[in-house]
Amino acid sequence: MSTDLISQDTIVALATSSGANGAIAVIRLSGAEAIAITNAVFKGKDLLKEASHTIHFGTIRDGEEIIDEVLVSLFIGPNSYTKENVVEISTHNSKYIIERLINLLLKKGARAARAGEFTLRAFLNGGLDLSQAEAVADLIASNSAASHQVAMQQMRGGFSNQLKKLREDLVHFASLIELELDFGEEDVEFANRDQLKSLILNIEQVIRRLISSFEQGNVLKNGVPVVIAGKPNVGKSTLLNALLNEERAIVSDIAGTTRDTIEDEINIQGITFRFIDTAGIRETLDVIEAKGVERTRDKMKQASLIIYLFDPTQDSLETAQQQIAELSALNIAFVTLINKSDLLSAAERQTFEVLAPVYISAKEQIGIEELKTELLRQVNLLNIQTDDVLVTNIRHVEALQKTQESLERVLYGIDNPVTSDFLAMDIRQALHHLGEITGSVTTDDLLENIFSKFCIGK
Amino acid sequence: MSTDLISQDTIVALATSSGANGAIAVIRLSGAEAIAITNAVFKGKDLLKEASHTIHFGTIRDGEEIIDEVLVSLFIGPNSYTKENVVEISTHNSKYIIERLINLLLKKGARAARAGEFTLRAFLNGGLDLSQAEAVADLIASNSAASHQVAMQQMRGGFSNQLKKLREDLVHFASLIELELDFGEEDVEFANRDQLKSLILNIEQVIRRLISSFEQGNVLKNGVPVVIAGKPNVGKSTLLNALLNEERAIVSDIAGTTRDTIEDEINIQGITFRFIDTAGIRETLDVIEAKGVERTRDKMKQASLIIYLFDPTQDSLETAQQQIAELSALNIAFVTLINKSDLLSAAERQTFEVLAPVYISAKEQIGIEELKTELLRQVNLLNIQTDDVLVTNIRHVEALQKTQESLERVLYGIDNPVTSDFLAMDIRQALHHLGEITGSVTTDDLLENIFSKFCIGK
Repeated sequence: MSTDLISQDTIVALATSSGANGAIAVIRLSGAEAIAITNAVFKGKDLLKEASHTIHFGTIRDGEEIIDEVLVSLFIGPNSYTKENVVEISTHNSKYIIERLINLLLKKGARAARAGEFTLRAFLNGGLDLSQAEAVADLIASNSAASHQVAMQQMRGGFSNQLKKLREDLVHFASLIELELDFGEEDVEFANRDQLKSLILNIEQVIRRLISSFEQGNVLKNGVPVVIAGKPNVGKSTLLNALLNEERAIVSDIAGTTRDTIEDEINIQGITFRFIDTAGIRETLDVIEAKGVERTRDKMKQASLIIYLFDPTQDSLETAQQQIAELSALNIAFVTLINKSDLLSAAERQTFEVLAPVYISAKEQIGIEELKTELLRQVNLLNIQTDDVLVTNIRHVEALQKTQESLERVLYGIDNPVTSDFLAMDIRQALHHLGEITGSVTTDDLLENIFSKFCIGK
Repeated sequence: MSTDLISQDTIVALATSSGANGAIAVIRLSGAEAIAITNAVFKGKDLLKEASHTIHFGTIRDGEEIIDEVLVSLFIGPNSYTKENVVEISTHNSKYIIERLINLLLKKGARAARAGEFTLRAFLNGGLDLSQAEAVADLIASNSAASHQVAMQQMRGGFSNQLKKLREDLVHFASLIELELDFGEEDVEFANRDQLKSLILNIEQVIRRLISSFEQGNVLKNGVPVVIAGKPNVGKSTLLNALLNEERAIVSDIAGTTRDTIEDEINIQGITFRFIDTAGIRETLDVIEAKGVERTRDKMKQASLIIYLFDPTQDSLETAQQQIAELSALNIAFVTLINKSDLLSAAERQTFEVLAPVYISAKEQIGIEELKTELLRQVNLLNIQTDDVLVTNIRHVEALQKTQESLERVLYGIDNPVTSDFLAMDIRQALHHLGEITGSVTTDDLLENIFSKFCIGK
């Protein structure tokens, strides 16, 4: 466990966004002296005599000068986010007031918080494990139903809970095997090898499932990367706009929460589809025809899904089939769309049936719903179970993979003439990597790396 | 008193800024059903059974789905900002969560708050008078020590308190005079005319002081408009940068509170100086020389202060004197600066003494402090008494002026053979205008006009 990062300072930071469009702002303090420091500038009550989870109206004063009328919320440790004393001061949202107030608190003995330091303290003081702390950042960044749910899952325990039980069982076996070592040459076996093997197979099964959930988890967290391929002027922009416009229309109109619509990103039933690049990629098929495939193929590989858009009024079935064959070679899921399908006769439509396409008209907004259903079906997300535990963090996957490698060595050791000390070492190694996920094993570097990505005030 | 604007709805809005850089966000509800509506989506406790000014941890759920882990603060009316039941829900600062949560509360019966509606309710329910409510918006917008202090003064009662007592005395006299009317021809005098006259002179004195404070109040609130005049290449940009750079260096470095430095605005001892326009104005003196004065003069009149910058290595004393004479004609306070003063010999310096200048070198940062002192002195703000009650709102000044006009008619009526009914009418008129300031007399139009300028959530 890291100790360098544990500090006894009382820290302070603005906890709300710093924009000018809010009515109130919240300044947060955490540390042993949080209440005393606030009390030194607060007039209205003696905050030191008040109970946890209570709110107090009064003024903040710098000498005789009133900085603001505020509400002060008290959280007495360990009944707080950080498990320390926490104070939240709700002020009018004026930059001037916020600056004055924070400066005043610094003068009275608080220190400006570093990025993520509140959550770091919550972790160091046992309020959250590491994967939960990481989920807090994911939760704040979440911008779709899916990414929100995955982050929420993880923050509320998620797979740490699953791993915790397995880890405890494994610790038990490690202890027994280390006990064997104490008896040296006596050739005793405290740890039942069959039970150990069964436990490890069990753990491996869970870990394999978690590792394999990463792809899906990652898609839910970051969105499905999609390429729209097709000849120039086949209607790619019109299609993208048709998808985007519909979304813009349903974007919530609640004041103060206007969402910045990200160009080239659409949300279908809570799943984000990201349309990657444009220039280099949208014209991909042409590039494939004209030049070598290699460079483009590299770019294409970023995609989890290709939408192939075909204009039957421009080209023949044979052209479509040839292009589809080339795209198939990339081995990426793809959907074939016949655009301008409203202009096709029944007979013509029959001709294209062989491509198993979705018939649309980007311009006339025909077939857009069918397309969406097909997109979800292609990425196997139609019936997504977001209450499944999913791994979305590359750090976790790597730790899980290393755990699995160690467990493989343990299994090998059980079935082969390997001495207990090697067996114990491999189990300890597996425990180490499992511990990295939840933070029962950490280094200062790792923690700094994780928490420095947080915003100040979290 | 307005009634159309009083609504029984429970309103909801995001109360904090909507930027992405915060850790938490606060969603606020106000109205009879605020606690019940929150309770319908909150899991953890029965909020309806909890005391005012307490905080409760739990989850917000949409059916089974957890939207967020939150802290809920309860304020039971009338012990709240709006005097109604108020709930503040502190969530993770994710746009997705905020949108989901507000939508959920709307579904459960809340209504999206209009701009300023929380403060409007505080006013309508007697929590604030109108000038205090207006000061809340000023307070949020305040960006200097001076504008902050003026707004704080007003929010905490300010001149409403002064006016209130005078108004009560005047109401008393109005009643007495109206009583005289009931006795018709009997020629009784319940209201002592000498006392009334003395009261009105007293009120007029206060009102005159308030009206005359407007200029100073306005300067404190909005900053002093300044023009830098001088020939091209005399060092105007260098001077501005010298003033701005020094400020940039002392701009607080506290994370999360970075202030957008406004170009052409500097802060000297808490007072903002705004350097107006650039192109048209900075080269003013040239324009004056070259073309007619009229158009430029109009622009110059926006300034409260002119800084005239002179380069003694370019031009003679006579040129300076001629230009100063032209600027004097504008009848605006001005400061003469001799730039590049480090290049002057003692004898040369003696020559320019007749201009009573401040000697500076913009490039070498010489004389900048002296310049600042001179700027404050010029606008009579060196010893500003910010605990004086100042009027900063044009609406208030207009109401005060109308009050004064009515009072003048009352005074005339006392000293001349005017019947009591006219006297009563003029007193009522004065009371009406006084009441407009604090909101004891309002119209829906006036309120809408005032509160629609607020942000949502305030």
